[in-house]
Amino acid sequence: MILRQLRFTLRPRPRGFHLVTREVLEALGELGGIGTGLCHLFLQHSSASLTLNENTDPAVREDFEAQARHLAPDGAPYYRHNLEGPDDLPAHLKASLFGSGLSIPIADGRLALGTWQGIYLGEHREQGGPRRVVATLLGEKRG
Amino acid sequence: MILRQLRFTLRPRPRGFHLVTREVLEALGELGGIGTGLCHLFLQHSSASLTLNENTDPAVREDFEAQARHLAPDGAPYYRHNLEGPDDLPAHLKASLFGSGLSIPIADGRLALGTWQGIYLGEHREQGGPRRVVATLLGEKRG
Amino acid sequence: MILRQLRFTLRPRPRGFHLVTREVLEALGELGGIGTGLCHLFLQHSSASLTLNENTDPAVREDFEAQARHLAPDGAPYYRHNLEGPDDLPAHLKASLFGSGLSIPIADGRLALGTWQGIYLGEHREQGGPRRVVATLLGEKRG
Repeated sequence: MILRQLRFTLRPRPRGFHLVTREVLEALGELGGIGTGLCHLFLQHSSASLTLNENTDPAVREDFEAQARHLAPDGAPYYRHNLEGPDDLPAHLKASLFGSGLSIPIADGRLALGTWQGIYLGEHREQGGPRRVVATLLGEKRG
Repeated sequence: MILRQLRFTLRPRPRGFHLVTREVLEALGELGGIGTGLCHLFLQHSSASLTLNENTDPAVREDFEAQARHLAPDGAPYYRHNLEGPDDLPAHLKASLFGSGLSIPIADGRLALGTWQGIYLGEHREQGGPRRVVATLLGEKRG
Repeated sequence: MILRQLRFTLRPRPRGFHLVTREVLEALGELGGIGTGLCHLFLQHSSASLTLNENTDPAVREDFEAQARHLAPDGAPYYRHNLEGPDDLPAHLKASLFGSGLSIPIADGRLALGTWQGIYLGEHREQGGPRRVVATLLGEKRG
């Protein structure tokens, strides 16, 4: 069994959901030589999220943003945490609803995503900036 | 430390939340001989979810479906991803809100679920079909 | 590679979201001597949740509770699972939306949380009582 941990940064993106599979795969490289195991991706932030979803039609990501604005509306009158603007508290809430970490199986030396699954970054701030990820990979060496 | 990975399919179910603990346990068998560790279950789909919840009263699952239809309503007029019908985009959104993966501790050679915890499959499509699961088990051999 | 599993109990808290980072860190102690790896925290309950979010302003937790009451309203007329009161079904739903487990990387012998990340217990019952956690830690010994 081997363990690899690496850190990388996702480049800044505008508010919304973004397909980042390719950027993540480039950062992960050869998956530390692991053939079978688990890959855990962890955002070190409380106003962005990582989730898996449909990897083809960009309209899915636009609809996610639209519906997320219903689930956690900007500037609701009862929010008390408003220091950084109307997108501040909703960003935190969306980070917890969609989650800031993901575990994906590794099989045959690749992430075992389904045909239609891609990795989404949910950028929930208007100006979120670059986002730090800690990747932890555990498993058996590729044979 | 040992690692086991196996794949299985959950049989097709109608739209809604379904208690699948027994079907999952049958597929996992002896948990690869692991006594203490972690079991990761991963759906290779973007329109269904795996979550843990109350394992006794079927009304909980019915209420989950009812409330999930409020969180991601069918056919909202602002959805742009509608190709496969009014349940299409909401299914994707529910997959991300409830999540497509679960990690459960293994203790004493069993999944260390609480007394009232069971594994739910959230089937978010009207006709979702069979659902593929990748199970990755990591841990120490049963003594 | 080493594996450690331990169990602890979070003290009873009122309904709402609570910062429990310190209580969790005390229970985890030296992280089983692991320097690099993963820490998985698992609630053995179906009416409370564990999530990561902002660790400084208590208003964030108050706003989370307020908005969570919109996402899963108490005593909605269509709920069928009402045996234990109007907070019963919403507690189950919030447990699944926010999630009952968390994986956090371990680096340099510490949880690799971001500067602003803390561990929240979402206590979704009026009288939830103490909450049991199973912690599973996997990784390489501290050098």
